[in-house]
Amino acid sequence: MKTYKIVTIGGGSSYTPELIEGFIKRYAELPVRELWLVDIEEGKEKLNIITKLAERMVKKAGIPMKIYSTLNRREALKDADFVTTQFRVGGLHARSLDESIPLSHGLIGQETNGAGGMFKALRTIPVIFDILKDCKELCPNAFVVNFTNPAGLVTEAVLNHTSWERFIGVCNLPYGMEVGVSKILEAEKSRVRVHMAGLNHMVFGLDVFLDGVSVKRDVLEKMATESESLNMKNIMDLPWSPEFLRGLDAIPCAYHRYYFQKDQMLSHMLEDFKTGETRASQVMAVEEDLFKKYQDEDLADKPKELELRGGAFYSDAAVNLISSIANDKRDIQVVNTRNKGAIASLPFDSAVEVSSIITKDGPVPLATGLLPAAAEGIVQQLKSFERLTVKAALSGKYEDAYVAMVTNPLVQSEHLGRKVLDDLLLAHEKHLPAFKETIDTLRNRP
Amino acid sequence: MKTYKIVTIGGGSSYTPELIEGFIKRYAELPVRELWLVDIEEGKEKLNIITKLAERMVKKAGIPMKIYSTLNRREALKDADFVTTQFRVGGLHARSLDESIPLSHGLIGQETNGAGGMFKALRTIPVIFDILKDCKELCPNAFVVNFTNPAGLVTEAVLNHTSWERFIGVCNLPYGMEVGVSKILEAEKSRVRVHMAGLNHMVFGLDVFLDGVSVKRDVLEKMATESESLNMKNIMDLPWSPEFLRGLDAIPCAYHRYYFQKDQMLSHMLEDFKTGETRASQVMAVEEDLFKKYQDEDLADKPKELELRGGAFYSDAAVNLISSIANDKRDIQVVNTRNKGAIASLPFDSAVEVSSIITKDGPVPLATGLLPAAAEGIVQQLKSFERLTVKAALSGKYEDAYVAMVTNPLVQSEHLGRKVLDDLLLAHEKHLPAFKETIDTLRNRP
Amino acid sequence: MKTYKIVTIGGGSSYTPELIEGFIKRYAELPVRELWLVDIEEGKEKLNIITKLAERMVKKAGIPMKIYSTLNRREALKDADFVTTQFRVGGLHARSLDESIPLSHGLIGQETNGAGGMFKALRTIPVIFDILKDCKELCPNAFVVNFTNPAGLVTEAVLNHTSWERFIGVCNLPYGMEVGVSKILEAEKSRVRVHMAGLNHMVFGLDVFLDGVSVKRDVLEKMATESESLNMKNIMDLPWSPEFLRGLDAIPCAYHRYYFQKDQMLSHMLEDFKTGETRASQVMAVEEDLFKKYQDEDLADKPKELELRGGAFYSDAAVNLISSIANDKRDIQVVNTRNKGAIASLPFDSAVEVSSIITKDGPVPLATGLLPAAAEGIVQQLKSFERLTVKAALSGKYEDAYVAMVTNPLVQSEHLGRKVLDDLLLAHEKHLPAFKETIDTLRNRP
Amino acid sequence: MKTYKIVTIGGGSSYTPELIEGFIKRYAELPVRELWLVDIEEGKEKLNIITKLAERMVKKAGIPMKIYSTLNRREALKDADFVTTQFRVGGLHARSLDESIPLSHGLIGQETNGAGGMFKALRTIPVIFDILKDCKELCPNAFVVNFTNPAGLVTEAVLNHTSWERFIGVCNLPYGMEVGVSKILEAEKSRVRVHMAGLNHMVFGLDVFLDGVSVKRDVLEKMATESESLNMKNIMDLPWSPEFLRGLDAIPCAYHRYYFQKDQMLSHMLEDFKTGETRASQVMAVEEDLFKKYQDEDLADKPKELELRGGAFYSDAAVNLISSIANDKRDIQVVNTRNKGAIASLPFDSAVEVSSIITKDGPVPLATGLLPAAAEGIVQQLKSFERLTVKAALSGKYEDAYVAMVTNPLVQSEHLGRKVLDDLLLAHEKHLPAFKETIDTLRNRP
Repeated sequence: MKTYKIVTIGGGSSYTPELIEGFIKRYAELPVRELWLVDIEEGKEKLNIITKLAERMVKKAGIPMKIYSTLNRREALKDADFVTTQFRVGGLHARSLDESIPLSHGLIGQETNGAGGMFKALRTIPVIFDILKDCKELCPNAFVVNFTNPAGLVTEAVLNHTSWERFIGVCNLPYGMEVGVSKILEAEKSRVRVHMAGLNHMVFGLDVFLDGVSVKRDVLEKMATESESLNMKNIMDLPWSPEFLRGLDAIPCAYHRYYFQKDQMLSHMLEDFKTGETRASQVMAVEEDLFKKYQDEDLADKPKELELRGGAFYSDAAVNLISSIANDKRDIQVVNTRNKGAIASLPFDSAVEVSSIITKDGPVPLATGLLPAAAEGIVQQLKSFERLTVKAALSGKYEDAYVAMVTNPLVQSEHLGRKVLDDLLLAHEKHLPAFKETIDTLRNRP
Repeated sequence: MKTYKIVTIGGGSSYTPELIEGFIKRYAELPVRELWLVDIEEGKEKLNIITKLAERMVKKAGIPMKIYSTLNRREALKDADFVTTQFRVGGLHARSLDESIPLSHGLIGQETNGAGGMFKALRTIPVIFDILKDCKELCPNAFVVNFTNPAGLVTEAVLNHTSWERFIGVCNLPYGMEVGVSKILEAEKSRVRVHMAGLNHMVFGLDVFLDGVSVKRDVLEKMATESESLNMKNIMDLPWSPEFLRGLDAIPCAYHRYYFQKDQMLSHMLEDFKTGETRASQVMAVEEDLFKKYQDEDLADKPKELELRGGAFYSDAAVNLISSIANDKRDIQVVNTRNKGAIASLPFDSAVEVSSIITKDGPVPLATGLLPAAAEGIVQQLKSFERLTVKAALSGKYEDAYVAMVTNPLVQSEHLGRKVLDDLLLAHEKHLPAFKETIDTLRNRP
Repeated sequence: MKTYKIVTIGGGSSYTPELIEGFIKRYAELPVRELWLVDIEEGKEKLNIITKLAERMVKKAGIPMKIYSTLNRREALKDADFVTTQFRVGGLHARSLDESIPLSHGLIGQETNGAGGMFKALRTIPVIFDILKDCKELCPNAFVVNFTNPAGLVTEAVLNHTSWERFIGVCNLPYGMEVGVSKILEAEKSRVRVHMAGLNHMVFGLDVFLDGVSVKRDVLEKMATESESLNMKNIMDLPWSPEFLRGLDAIPCAYHRYYFQKDQMLSHMLEDFKTGETRASQVMAVEEDLFKKYQDEDLADKPKELELRGGAFYSDAAVNLISSIANDKRDIQVVNTRNKGAIASLPFDSAVEVSSIITKDGPVPLATGLLPAAAEGIVQQLKSFERLTVKAALSGKYEDAYVAMVTNPLVQSEHLGRKVLDDLLLAHEKHLPAFKETIDTLRNRP
Repeated sequence: MKTYKIVTIGGGSSYTPELIEGFIKRYAELPVRELWLVDIEEGKEKLNIITKLAERMVKKAGIPMKIYSTLNRREALKDADFVTTQFRVGGLHARSLDESIPLSHGLIGQETNGAGGMFKALRTIPVIFDILKDCKELCPNAFVVNFTNPAGLVTEAVLNHTSWERFIGVCNLPYGMEVGVSKILEAEKSRVRVHMAGLNHMVFGLDVFLDGVSVKRDVLEKMATESESLNMKNIMDLPWSPEFLRGLDAIPCAYHRYYFQKDQMLSHMLEDFKTGETRASQVMAVEEDLFKKYQDEDLADKPKELELRGGAFYSDAAVNLISSIANDKRDIQVVNTRNKGAIASLPFDSAVEVSSIITKDGPVPLATGLLPAAAEGIVQQLKSFERLTVKAALSGKYEDAYVAMVTNPLVQSEHLGRKVLDDLLLAHEKHLPAFKETIDTLRNRP
């Protein structure tokens, strides 16, 4: 039986224990021979803690999975079968800035599709491109499974501006939506399939099948009347109006609250912000606790607390995907991949998040045709923002970044957009090499 | 030489003297034999004032154009060559509600593409459909030239839900943009052509030709550095940042301020609102003055003050269009018409506002191909809103109207959207026959 | 474990023993509880012969599969899980006319995509529509697996002019191509995948994967230099030029000889025709022999001779498909199904023959994007012919049938097309109820 | 008033007197200051004859149009306003080979869209590309109006493989069709407009307007019953069947006979060929006569006999086009230009022949939407052939030329296609520099 070499870039992440748990649980179908945890100098200490915990977990499980730990990415990548990427350029501190700087100007930062997400993309894209250059040389047949946010934007950049094809963006949100819908239907998740289409963090459940029969209307009605909600740990749990759900005729994702409940989201976030809290600051606190736990030499399992971290289901989502590719399972999962006509109104080469059949050659997206009108507008709007952000990441020009910022549906302001842009450029300078000249000019502006 | 019968529905409008001036000025090329001013019972008094002024104007001009005045639309339409529609269902009072109700909940109303515009469309579409039914019977070869706002939305409804083909939506904004660009270039307007594409009040100047040579970059640079602006009387004159214009690489229209300078627009509007002022209330004051002037029996010209009304260039835009059709002039004008592939990413049958060659058979839109990314997103967003609004106008369902409202980029709030929706439904009940049941249910809600 | 009820319409076909062999071989994974063989009055005798042979085969295999034999289609269809259709309206005699009438005017008849195929479609489409009406009532969740030729044309008609979705057209040709390519590569078929796209009997092998790595160039080179050919029993085995294959850069199917080696095909067929031979007459002789064999009470297996019949692999192709649906296998098979954007230049709703993943909900076509230019032209040409033929089948108009005939790439002649059309209409009158009036007029023409 | 410099490449053509007549007749609206007749060394003698005739014609007309005659193309192109191209690489002898070599193998040569036209394109494209390189340098704002056949194929090459935009392909066929339809309607041509769409020599009359009202059905009925035909001097006048025309529901062009009356066309051509006649040989005889006439020093007009040449209406078509551009006339003419969405199923950038409004910036094609099914197939087929031929012209590869040849709907034979290809390659070697290596290999083949 074939065994696998897996490389996890950002191995020192607090999420890693989930991933390891995932590999352990699925060892029978996906025998991981070598798991390489890679991180950078700044993450050395965390990497060590994670590595030791991983070794204890593997030992307890009694499986022959070897854990390697290194700061040398190229050494790790050699002949890898799968590469997972889950790093955070600039760490949680950078995220904190992504969220707090927009809030300081009265805007939602939103770490994936808002002003904050835009800067996360600007920091991440060049690093991903570097990793792919190494992969091209050292493991040209590997699949790269990217959890690094903003997963959609990063996939858009890779599919349109590199020659690397085997790149899949993964998010735990669609998985969570299927779990939620299964609960609403009081049915085993395996009996339920939600047909999803859209973009990352902007995906719609366009149909729901229970044992193959469409029950979307029932689900919407239950969500509408019993105030069931499909939520994520990291997004405030505002219910949707019954009438809105009926009119939408599709299941919104948690992130749609930013666009369709914007005022309430903003006012809650501003309240928290006044008290010094952002989602990043909460996460930082959780992380500190987690790493304390991870150091406990008696701990040889993923601690329950990790689920509070907002990344629940990441393990299932990611390891499921890898196992489906390795075993050519042909099951349906929702991933970020090349559109190829699946959503008729988006370009053939765009990255989209769609229900796809997972084969040994990667995802095959299921055809959706045209999106319903209510989904079409906001999806197109966000796709334009993605393309503008990718353009800015490659050009490093102020004007390109500025237009991406202002046309974002959470910004909509030339005036505030500029303030947020300037502050974020200066704050993240270290991680924005393409913008060096732009930032120098900015700094010297009177 | 062929002479023409023209019917103006909403003849009692304060704009009518401009239209009459337009017909007088172009009498040589467009000999109007009969001009029928049609209005409804409620507008009888204004219609009389306008009719008398019109007669004085014609008399002074010394041309054989006969003015007819009637409340009987069917009598007027018989064998018409052109029908212009410029009515306001519910009058300025309705507009005042369209604007003030959203502001009372902290939202921009915007009389064409916002919550206010949505209700203007819901009131207007059924009336337009009725008029077209009469036209089908009484003047099947006429062109209907519609200035009634929201011109884009109304055209979308007509082209996709009636069998009437000869329908053109006209707006003075593109005309004003060309005038503005000509000023920036210090050139005669006849030497300048702006290639425009998008939707009504969401149109972009994608290129500028001076004597046939592209000078877009120069225009943008001048707009950027000399703070030239292309404005309309009815929109606050906020300048655009140079960097934003460079990044956009297209000339925005005045209404783009609502989407890209939203916070400033809103705060100015809220300030005015506190003092009891909305754009509608200003217009009402201007109108009152105007009608006083119109009654002056010594007046036989369009008074200068009309230009303050915000409708400058309507005369030129509308009469130019009619004359170009009548004379098969083949000049380029920007109108709302069927897309027919001109904007590659919008459906073949959508209404779009694009530079078109005006022939005796109607407009032939110039091909644009794909819109630039910065324009694509917001244009698609608004087109979705238009389609949702048309759907609601036809169904009369609460849930359809609610989704149209919430997904509008100036609303983005389920919570506030509902309040605005409910208040507007109740306020406009009289003019929303399709929503009768919906409003009854709403009223009886606990 | 779920067991299945399968209904075979045209159960008296000489192919049926292959199908039964297929069900027997796969009984473990696809336990067929009831197999209903349905035929019409005229086929009663053959049906009896086949039924008895089937019973002997099942008995020998020792499996509890019950064989039912009936002339009452509606009785059979009740609660079926799968319906296979493999009938021939008018029998082999009609096919003989389809082929010989065109040859008598010097034209290739071609029983699927030529003049002959057009008439096979005109006879078949109304019967298929009737069957689907019964299915709608009696087994609304069944899949209909159609082997009746012309499989592409019939699928085009069903997908665009009925509300029945679960319809799949199957052909043995793609299966045979994969077998042939595997031989060329000297590899097990399971290691080889040919990505195919086009229309039925007009499908191209656009890529070849051996263990997932593209080896198309090698296959083409081998086909080119070693004169390997991918052939079918029922098509003359003319080799392809190396240079043509290199230029085509895709693997042609056997039927491409009719379009790209037309003169040689025609002259061989005319030679045979002079001696009284057509493909139909050969098949009739083979059939007679087969049915003699089938009556042998010692025979309890599919006789080897059946493979000479031209339908080799039908069993594998059809039963494979049914088993993949029943078991939700998600393997890739080449079927006729709705395009859904898989071939970018064909309409979303067109029937296409493409590599598809077979799920419990039916086929999911793999995206192809744009076809190469050399394939695009002839595929579009044939799709137009299909649409015109379907139009004629529904209208029964002479002029519609005439245009379909003349624009067929094997006809190209108004003059000969008319002769062929008239002769075929008169010859098949009995089976063309929609054309009754047209044929009456034709007969009374001076 | 602006005066014009016009350059005619291939000035020694027998067509030139028509062109000169055209400029003389339209001098008032299109004052040509300088007309430069350019030819190559081999055409020197004919150029001299034409130049002298031109001078006599101008003198007789009494207009100040100066005729220049030169073998130096670059000298002529300097600051040209319009460049017309009407040359024939290899002369009529090459055309004779284009037609006779296919016929010697039993195939229609067809000088534009068949095997012959393919080679005309292979000889012509490199020369056109050279001319455009000179234009880029010497007259970058000029319009190039190309009559050189195959006009569609050449335009396809230029629009997709050069950066020259101002290129228009002109053909006399659509003009002739409008003349023919006017005769059928017994109406002045100015009252009639045929909406045409398709490709060069594969264009369909999709609608007919008389005074703006659709009368297509009447025209088809008259064509059908009165056996009216729309023909060209150079194509045999076979009538169309009434039923075929009704089914087609569009007006075919003369060249459709090659595709829809292929057998009769071929047999007539083979008969002529046996007697040593091809269209080229007829033309050569006519030309000889013409040039004798042209030398007559008393001749100062275009001689009537030129109309037998097959190029009737070229003068009107070409000079009309130039005048419409020069005067920004905005009339509708049928030209070969970039598709830009006008035919929805063809790529945005393809060359198409469509009714277009002619402006000072070039043609604006009228939207057609989807072609009717009967036109769609053959148009797509020919577009693929065009793309394959252009590919071969650029690559010079045998295999590319071979596939273009075989997939042509007038060839359809690998076997005969190869013979025709080989003979044509060897026959035209001198004019196929890109194929040098290919031809060397071919010659050295055993």
